[in-house]
Amino acid sequence: MLIVQKYGGSSVANAERIKRVAGRVAGVKSEGHDVVVVVSAMGDTTDELIDLVNSISDSPAEREMDMILSTGEQVSIGLLAMAVQNHGLGAISMTGPQAGIQTDRVHTKARIKDIQCDRIKEELASGKVVIVAGFQGINRYGDITTLGRGGSDTTAVALAAALNADVCEIYTDVDGVYTTDPRVVRDAKKLDFITYDEMLELAHLGAQVLHPRSVECAKMYNIKLHVRSSFNNNPGTIVKEAGNMEKKLVVTGVAHDLQVAKFGLFDVPDRPGIAYTIFSALAEEHINVDMIIQSAMRNEVNDISFTIAATDLKRVQSVMKMIKDKVGFSGFTWDDNMAKVSVVGAGMVSNPGVAAMIFEALSSQNINLEMISTSEIKVSCIIKASQAEIAVKALHDKFKMAEL
Amino acid sequence: MLIVQKYGGSSVANAERIKRVAGRVAGVKSEGHDVVVVVSAMGDTTDELIDLVNSISDSPAEREMDMILSTGEQVSIGLLAMAVQNHGLGAISMTGPQAGIQTDRVHTKARIKDIQCDRIKEELASGKVVIVAGFQGINRYGDITTLGRGGSDTTAVALAAALNADVCEIYTDVDGVYTTDPRVVRDAKKLDFITYDEMLELAHLGAQVLHPRSVECAKMYNIKLHVRSSFNNNPGTIVKEAGNMEKKLVVTGVAHDLQVAKFGLFDVPDRPGIAYTIFSALAEEHINVDMIIQSAMRNEVNDISFTIAATDLKRVQSVMKMIKDKVGFSGFTWDDNMAKVSVVGAGMVSNPGVAAMIFEALSSQNINLEMISTSEIKVSCIIKASQAEIAVKALHDKFKMAEL
Repeated sequence: MLIVQKYGGSSVANAERIKRVAGRVAGVKSEGHDVVVVVSAMGDTTDELIDLVNSISDSPAEREMDMILSTGEQVSIGLLAMAVQNHGLGAISMTGPQAGIQTDRVHTKARIKDIQCDRIKEELASGKVVIVAGFQGINRYGDITTLGRGGSDTTAVALAAALNADVCEIYTDVDGVYTTDPRVVRDAKKLDFITYDEMLELAHLGAQVLHPRSVECAKMYNIKLHVRSSFNNNPGTIVKEAGNMEKKLVVTGVAHDLQVAKFGLFDVPDRPGIAYTIFSALAEEHINVDMIIQSAMRNEVNDISFTIAATDLKRVQSVMKMIKDKVGFSGFTWDDNMAKVSVVGAGMVSNPGVAAMIFEALSSQNINLEMISTSEIKVSCIIKASQAEIAVKALHDKFKMAEL
Repeated sequence: MLIVQKYGGSSVANAERIKRVAGRVAGVKSEGHDVVVVVSAMGDTTDELIDLVNSISDSPAEREMDMILSTGEQVSIGLLAMAVQNHGLGAISMTGPQAGIQTDRVHTKARIKDIQCDRIKEELASGKVVIVAGFQGINRYGDITTLGRGGSDTTAVALAAALNADVCEIYTDVDGVYTTDPRVVRDAKKLDFITYDEMLELAHLGAQVLHPRSVECAKMYNIKLHVRSSFNNNPGTIVKEAGNMEKKLVVTGVAHDLQVAKFGLFDVPDRPGIAYTIFSALAEEHINVDMIIQSAMRNEVNDISFTIAATDLKRVQSVMKMIKDKVGFSGFTWDDNMAKVSVVGAGMVSNPGVAAMIFEALSSQNINLEMISTSEIKVSCIIKASQAEIAVKALHDKFKMAEL
C-alpha cells in the first residue's frame, strides 16, 4: 500500500513527540508499505513567527509573510527525517517547492494547482520515507506561497490524489470525528464513518478536525480519509462516499464556530448590480462572505447584513469605507461576538421535521436566532457567541446524538 | 553605484536592530544607489536550531541539517524586507536558491559554483532593494546547501562579483579591522587600509571579522571590501589591492585563534605514500589540516604531528581509529588546549628580522613554541591556549602597533 500520513503541529510539538511520530512511521514502513508523511510546524512555531512579524510591521507584505511562515514546516520536516533515520530507515525531507507543489499566486491563502511528484516517486522507489512540508508551495514566479488555515491537510490530500495513494491518514490530538465538540458536550460520540458531504459541512461549520478544502479535494478525487489520534492506536473515523455506509444517519453532528462577525450596511440603494459591487469588492480581497440577508424593501433602500470570519473584520471595515460613497449606503455596523451553530446530516433532506426540532431546542433555551441558512444536509444558525455552548448541548440532546 | 551590504547576526538580533538596519539601507537607497543586502540569521537562531537538532539525533544527516539551518536566514530576510518596506520603498527577499546561488553538493560546507542573478537584476531594475539570505544555496539536485562558517560573507562577496558591484560593505559589531583583537589589547588600532593578502592571512589566522573564503573571493574578482560597524557611521577598513596604499607596513596585525587542537601519531612507518594515506583520509571528510610536522627519523618510524580546528577533534579521532591498522602507527594523542598566534604584514618579506623579533618577544614571556609556520607575509606559532593573551600583547608591543 501507499499511505500518506499527516501530522499536525501538536503531534510534533517537541523532540519527544517527533520521536514518537518517527516510531509510528517506522512501524508502518517496516510492514512493507510506502509512506509519504506531511507535517505541520512544531506546536506554537507559527504563532511565534507571527509575533515576530508584528514586532516589525503593522501591515506586513503577504509575500514576505509566506517567506517567514514557511520556515516552521521546514524545520519540522528536517527533524522528523532525522528521527526516522535513527530507526535505520532511509528518509528524506522536502519543502513544498521541492515536492513540486505548484500553487496560484495568492500569498497567505494560495490554492494548489498541480503537483509534479517525479522526485517523490523516485525517492519512494529507492525505499525512502518521504517527508513533505505541509502548508506550502511555489508559484510560477518561484516565490514561496502558503495555503492558509488547514493548509497541511490540503497538502496531504492533494499528495494522496497525485500519488494515487490507498489512504490518507490525518493524525490529530483527538480520536476522530465526533457528533460535536467533546470539550463542550461530554457525551459527544465518535463516528466510525461519515460521508464527504457531511464532513464538508461539519468542517465548514467550525469542526476543527479537518479543513473543508482538504475534504473537498478528497471528495473530488475519491481519496479515503482516516482521521485518527497520533497518541494511540484506536481506529478513528473513516471519511468516504455514502454508498457503502451501513446506515444513513438523519443527523450526524453539531458544529459550532466562535470566530464569526456580523456586518450590517444601512440604506443600500435598491439598484441592479449593487450587491455585485459590494461582494465583488470583498472577493477581490479574498474575503469569504458566509450568509447574506437583505431586509424587506423600504423606500427604495434596503439594509444588507452578512457574516464573515471574525479575523477578516478589519479588512472588511476598510473595504466598506472605500466603497461607501460609490455604493451610496448611509453607514455600517458590526458585531464580532457572534457564533454559528449548525446541525449536519445526510438524511436530513428526507426528514422535513429537522429544522422545526432545531428551532424548538434553541427557543427552549431563550436563544435568539439572528440569521438562518440551510442546505440539503445542514441547518446553520447565527446566535450570540455567549450562548453557543448552551445551544450545542441543547441540539446534541434534542437529536439524542450520544446514542448514535 | 551598486552597493552590496552584508549584516551579520548581531546586527539583526532583534526587531529594534532590524529596524535600524532598514533605516540605514533606506538611507543609502534614497541617495540613488542600487542596494543588495545579504543577511545572516538573527542573533543566536542558528545555535538554537542546532540545539533542537541535538535533541533529536547524535549524528544528524547533513542534508537535513542544511534543510533546518537555512530557515534562520529565511526568517531574517523576510523581516528585513518588511522593515525596509515600512520606509515606503520597494523591497523583496530571496532565499539562496531564489537568488540563483548554485553550489557544489557538499552539505554543511558547500562552495558556490555559480550565481544566476537574472532575477536580482530584474528586481533592482524595477527599483527594489533586494535582500538575499546569506550562508545558503542550492545544488544540482535541487537540495538546499549551506556554506559553513562565514558563509554570509562569502555570499555577499560572490554576489558583489556576479553583479559587478562597486563596493561590498561588510557590517559588523566592531569599527573595522584592528591590528589585533581590541578585547585582548586595549590600544589595538583600527587600520584604514589593508591588502587582500594581509586580510587573508589575518582571517585564516583567527581574526573573526571576515571569513577567509570571502577574502579569497574578493581578491580573485578584485571586489573592494569595506568592513565597518552597523552601530555608527564611522569609516571602517578598506580591503583592496596593495597598489594604491599610502605606505606598506612591515607588520599590520597580530591574530590569535583559540580553537586549535594538536594531534600526534606515534611510530608512523617511513614508507612512501604514508602521509598521503593519512591526510587524504582527512580531506575526504572535509577536515582542514593546518600545520604538519614530522619528527626526525628514528629506526624507520616517524612521529607526525598536525593541527586542526578544535571542533573537528572528534571526527579526526574516528578517522585515525579507522586507518590505524592500515597505516600501521602505534598510537595517537591530542591536546585541544592550543592556540595559534600570528604576526601578519605585507612588508615582512623584505624585513628578515621579523621572525627573530617574534621569538624574542615570546621567549621574554617564557612562552614555549610548539610549532612554527611561515609564509611571505606571516609567521604563526602554536602555543598553549592559556598563554595566548600574553603572547598577543607582547607581540603588539614589540612591533609598536599602537603607533601605526
